[in-house]
Amino acid sequence: VQNIGKKIWVIAEGYLPPDDLTKSHQLVSHETACMLNAGDVDANVAIKIFYKDRDPAGPFKVIVPAHRTLHLRFDGLTDPETIPRDCDYSSLIISDQPIVVQHTRLDSRGGGLALLSTIAYPVET
Amino acid sequence: VQNIGKKIWVIAEGYLPPDDLTKSHQLVSHETACMLNAGDVDANVAIKIFYKDRDPAGPFKVIVPAHRTLHLRFDGLTDPETIPRDCDYSSLIISDQPIVVQHTRLDSRGGGLALLSTIAYPVET
Amino acid sequence: VQNIGKKIWVIAEGYLPPDDLTKSHQLVSHETACMLNAGDVDANVAIKIFYKDRDPAGPFKVIVPAHRTLHLRFDGLTDPETIPRDCDYSSLIISDQPIVVQHTRLDSRGGGLALLSTIAYPVET
Amino acid sequence: VQNIGKKIWVIAEGYLPPDDLTKSHQLVSHETACMLNAGDVDANVAIKIFYKDRDPAGPFKVIVPAHRTLHLRFDGLTDPETIPRDCDYSSLIISDQPIVVQHTRLDSRGGGLALLSTIAYPVET
Repeated sequence: VQNIGKKIWVIAEGYLPPDDLTKSHQLVSHETACMLNAGDVDANVAIKIFYKDRDPAGPFKVIVPAHRTLHLRFDGLTDPETIPRDCDYSSLIISDQPIVVQHTRLDSRGGGLALLSTIAYPVET
Repeated sequence: VQNIGKKIWVIAEGYLPPDDLTKSHQLVSHETACMLNAGDVDANVAIKIFYKDRDPAGPFKVIVPAHRTLHLRFDGLTDPETIPRDCDYSSLIISDQPIVVQHTRLDSRGGGLALLSTIAYPVET
Repeated sequence: VQNIGKKIWVIAEGYLPPDDLTKSHQLVSHETACMLNAGDVDANVAIKIFYKDRDPAGPFKVIVPAHRTLHLRFDGLTDPETIPRDCDYSSLIISDQPIVVQHTRLDSRGGGLALLSTIAYPVET
Repeated sequence: VQNIGKKIWVIAEGYLPPDDLTKSHQLVSHETACMLNAGDVDANVAIKIFYKDRDPAGPFKVIVPAHRTLHLRFDGLTDPETIPRDCDYSSLIISDQPIVVQHTRLDSRGGGLALLSTIAYPVET
């Protein structure tokens, strides 16, 4: 099976809760873009971050290798900048190969756990 | 990339849990319509709220500027009216420019945190 | 705007957690099919419930009036039967008018709150 | 109604939290692929699991009988191998009959409950 997915995806929600960053890395509140490249060619992915009150940031560039998944943490992005916590954002994900994208947040403020997830929005091109 | 998204979206779920409104604003139970306008033209958005047992309300009008995201809290809407808490509703979102919409609820009743999120339903036109 | 939505929808997930049914009705663990009828004609909706190890049940019949939303609790269905708790199911929702469907679960086992939600799957006809 | 769903689906998110496996089986952190076969013919389903840093695993084969739902727990898969906990993955689900797929995670680390769910991504063929 080839051509699994789309080349452009949108995640309209985006928010990194303020949190205690000394917690276990896996349990610090975070968001991920889970990207599957089921194809035979490595995917070059460029992510653009949109904010409420300033110009977009990016592109943030990552590679999703052929036949691999990448669960990219937004709080791990540093180049060209970091995404501030406690700040609304959205992301536009552009790949040169078809991929599938799902968005997940773990919110551990207060010591409990909350999760959300959704398929991202695939843009027809 | 132009024409990212659709002009009409539906969020069939809608519920603002009853809550202690003296809590920190960010932690009061709420719902948001996260809207990305990735295009070059400001989007004029009209939201219509449907209820279980009375006529729809609205339009509630907001602008999502070009290249910006707006995470609109439903409990912040006041014109032409407010949405009651503890009341089932749905929303129809109509924009004059293509946007992408995602729906999120934070429920903090009882002191913990629960989250839900989904891509909204894009209407073909 | 007319023809908002589709006439056939699927919710593949379905599970009513075992719970203390003497709690406040709103906080008893439950699932809902949130259905918006944005059109001008009442929608007659028939729901069929699929199980793991027995024949499907239904149809369960409800009306979603024109310009109204109905957040239908699956644990409130009684005709032709009730859906057992602690039992996997799926639902097929067939309407004679276009509607939009979103699926939500509230799980309050143990005293906390957890939520999930997703747009249902719209079937092309 | 025939042909409800698609034959190829993707769940880009996938993660089995590390957990105390001596808890009640239903409350051990897990993920499910909820699959509805609303048609008249049994569906033969093959699942391929993609990882971050090694070749894909599978196929894992299951049958979703006609007119039945199967809520498949990923932590119950054993043939040809098990999926490790605390490891990012994605899944590609290929069926010989149309089905509908929804993805759910229950995370009970720490004693509370968190849930996520989304419709999976249907691949056009």
